[in-house]
Amino acid sequence: MIFNKTLDSLSNYEAGKPIELVVREYGVNAGDVIKVASNENPYGCSKRVIEAVSAEISKMNLYPDDSMYELKEALAKKYGVQSHNIIIGSGSDQIIEFSLFAKANPSNKIMMAKTTFAMYEIYGKRTGAGILKTPSGEHNLQEFIDIYKANENVAVVFLCLPNNPLGECLDKEEVFRFLKEISPDTLAVIDGAYQEFAAYKDENKKIDPKELIETFPNAIYLGTFSKAYGLGGMRTGYGVGDAKVISALSKLRSPFNITTLSLKAAIEALKDEEFIKMTVSKNFEQMSRYEEFADKLGLEFIKSYTNFITYKFGADKNSSDICEKLMKRGIIIRDLRSYGMNAARITIGTQAQNDKILQHLKAVY
Amino acid sequence: MIFNKTLDSLSNYEAGKPIELVVREYGVNAGDVIKVASNENPYGCSKRVIEAVSAEISKMNLYPDDSMYELKEALAKKYGVQSHNIIIGSGSDQIIEFSLFAKANPSNKIMMAKTTFAMYEIYGKRTGAGILKTPSGEHNLQEFIDIYKANENVAVVFLCLPNNPLGECLDKEEVFRFLKEISPDTLAVIDGAYQEFAAYKDENKKIDPKELIETFPNAIYLGTFSKAYGLGGMRTGYGVGDAKVISALSKLRSPFNITTLSLKAAIEALKDEEFIKMTVSKNFEQMSRYEEFADKLGLEFIKSYTNFITYKFGADKNSSDICEKLMKRGIIIRDLRSYGMNAARITIGTQAQNDKILQHLKAVY
Repeated sequence: MIFNKTLDSLSNYEAGKPIELVVREYGVNAGDVIKVASNENPYGCSKRVIEAVSAEISKMNLYPDDSMYELKEALAKKYGVQSHNIIIGSGSDQIIEFSLFAKANPSNKIMMAKTTFAMYEIYGKRTGAGILKTPSGEHNLQEFIDIYKANENVAVVFLCLPNNPLGECLDKEEVFRFLKEISPDTLAVIDGAYQEFAAYKDENKKIDPKELIETFPNAIYLGTFSKAYGLGGMRTGYGVGDAKVISALSKLRSPFNITTLSLKAAIEALKDEEFIKMTVSKNFEQMSRYEEFADKLGLEFIKSYTNFITYKFGADKNSSDICEKLMKRGIIIRDLRSYGMNAARITIGTQAQNDKILQHLKAVY
Repeated sequence: MIFNKTLDSLSNYEAGKPIELVVREYGVNAGDVIKVASNENPYGCSKRVIEAVSAEISKMNLYPDDSMYELKEALAKKYGVQSHNIIIGSGSDQIIEFSLFAKANPSNKIMMAKTTFAMYEIYGKRTGAGILKTPSGEHNLQEFIDIYKANENVAVVFLCLPNNPLGECLDKEEVFRFLKEISPDTLAVIDGAYQEFAAYKDENKKIDPKELIETFPNAIYLGTFSKAYGLGGMRTGYGVGDAKVISALSKLRSPFNITTLSLKAAIEALKDEEFIKMTVSKNFEQMSRYEEFADKLGLEFIKSYTNFITYKFGADKNSSDICEKLMKRGIIIRDLRSYGMNAARITIGTQAQNDKILQHLKAVY
């Protein structure tokens, strides 16, 4: 059977190893495995969410309210915008997909940093659009501008603020200066999946979605419940944009794109800001241990505004070796070899997890 | 901002009214509302599933095992195929989407019955492919063949067995005869969302996925956990196909396309066949009441192999009026006016629900 040509450039996404597989392959005790490879919240999620979802379990047979009235109202209130400025996705990944399918096609291009969230490129390829990347791995806006101006028809630009998998974050002011330079017909996707962390660490990094979309109606802000809110398994994210952009993207949204329990979880999660504060403050408290550890060993790291830290290894070390050795000890971190880097990304765990992770890391380094 | 032309032909999907809206609009007591508009399982889901999901709630922060190893193995075992013959979707809707994006494009066409599951056409339009429909609402394979032969480049054919929203079902033998007539390069999507019901009522309707894909490697069978399994809110479906077809479609699957709790629910649901038997047997027991009711009133209905019944109204009645009157009484059924029919689709409820539904229906008819 002959398939569409766009499939030729696609491969299957390689997810991090699930705990079950490590247990099976290395004979590690399941209870001893620590997975810090997917930037999941090590503190779980809000107790309010657990209670609300438990009470909703008898409704698994019922489709969710597809208008998502309550969740949209809650997000609109949080950000001081209107309900028609909000779209809900199965993870913010899905809003990335909608953004690309609304704008990109084989006759235009999309643009991103060299080392950034993999789904921009994967979804981008599905549209058949050309892919432009900056030479630098971390975001460099001068490079963005140069490439943007050298190319016609850049339909979508992605800025990941802060950037996954590296951790760096541009200042809001420089982002706004950049957005003034691009055409109002280019859709600027501001991916704020880790914004709760960045905004806490340095207010210069904070992007206010309302200010963003009122200043630049061609920008869309993406948020997620997967990281600070601790609901990675529930696949719920959102976009905040100008009503015209949201209306266009909504045409691509399928009915019931999140589950009944996910909808309940997200609504309830927004009511517990204390959980977010706890998560982000503990995160940076614990991250300092990873920075000190690296300084002691003379190990290079990228200053991180997220819930993970990226270690860059010198020529005498091999990231894949280190990851493999750690995995045999039941510690799963993310090798960045597939991004062409001799580096690894470690999600900041709980204090007890970090005790063990750093101990094992020291032993294998 | 200018969006891709494919968006011009799309509109936003209108879901059935959520109970909350009926309560608000008509001042009906929330507890008195009966929603039989979305073919949800009125018996809920298996108790085993509720227990398993409850035990998994503390893992909402963790992404699901993206290999979906356990679920694929369980489905493969159920159908006597291999794990590489299975793909998991966020509802079987998503496998419809993958099928279309893998094969359809602006230079070819897709084909379906005039009155069938709306998502075939909605996803089809997104690909830019031409849409071919038979003159008859219900599936008529002679019409399928005639149109198929009169057109070149039919990339995807949809057969909904049994058909939603009408309820009729083709025999397996005639389906196989039809499939012999079409090109091995046409992807034949056999949508079995309601197969558990049809197979119970009449074994001539039963499609065995293994036999299907071994006889026709260009066919893909779709199943869902939303109907007989009672997990509509959890958004989980699957496709069974030749390894090459599944491999191609898998390129379009995003990582983590179902939730951690959905994965657990589906795995557990497959272990409780008793729940399915109870659901389908009670369904047809109760459906006979709707048939008798119609006969008494001289009301036309389509013989149904699903968990719903479609009433066709005469020229002296208006389906929208009837639906509106019922809604004021707290009974939500599905008007088929948007399909160009003076008809309504009613999900078969529990005995107690049907007592009330038929009583109100009699009063407003």
